[in-house]
Amino acid sequence: MSNTQVLAASEPGGATSGVPCVPPVGERPFSAGEAEAAARMFKALGDPVRLRLFSLIASHEGGEACVCDISDVGVAQPTVSHHLKKLKEAGLLTSERRGTWVYYRVEGPVLASVARLLGHFG
Amino acid sequence: MSNTQVLAASEPGGATSGVPCVPPVGERPFSAGEAEAAARMFKALGDPVRLRLFSLIASHEGGEACVCDISDVGVAQPTVSHHLKKLKEAGLLTSERRGTWVYYRVEGPVLASVARLLGHFG
Repeated sequence: MSNTQVLAASEPGGATSGVPCVPPVGERPFSAGEAEAAARMFKALGDPVRLRLFSLIASHEGGEACVCDISDVGVAQPTVSHHLKKLKEAGLLTSERRGTWVYYRVEGPVLASVARLLGHFG
Repeated sequence: MSNTQVLAASEPGGATSGVPCVPPVGERPFSAGEAEAAARMFKALGDPVRLRLFSLIASHEGGEACVCDISDVGVAQPTVSHHLKKLKEAGLLTSERRGTWVYYRVEGPVLASVARLLGHFG
């Protein structure tokens, strides 16, 4: 099962929703599988350059940015591509080619499910 | 400035509050310093064993657990201690010795500020 599937259950139509299978962190101890899935997300966000790239895309109009918009974080293009790939693998971004450029979009429901993991504490 | 200070501004009394200095990820691109501070938190949560330990403490009564309660995640005690230290360094846990045992407590406001980073997207 992919990481996105564990963290965001599939809707009948096949699209991912924001419904998390992993409970909020204060509800009960995570199982090994839940911890694996959630840790993969946090690890993807746990690099400063990757997080800057992610915030750049997330704060761009419509939560989407062209690679041509995201080359000013002080690292070379291959490094940018590497980080974007990691964020895609974690399910936090999707990408789409339109003509010359690839556009990256934040997966809002997945991000929301990660936020819910940490919320409702106490 | 410590990580906790960047993510959770100090209250007049000196205790940390949940007010984040780092904005939600969809608000504007993070600065290098903001990304550093936030990535450190995510990195601390980005290990499956560490995350299981964290969820175990967070879901324990009062968001607090004795080390004697948290030895059943399938790793040796020195590994448990190593992970708890990393979570403390990130500002996500505090600890206190009471008699024989050390008690670990989740820093609720810091956790909430990390959740807010990911929330309010779109």
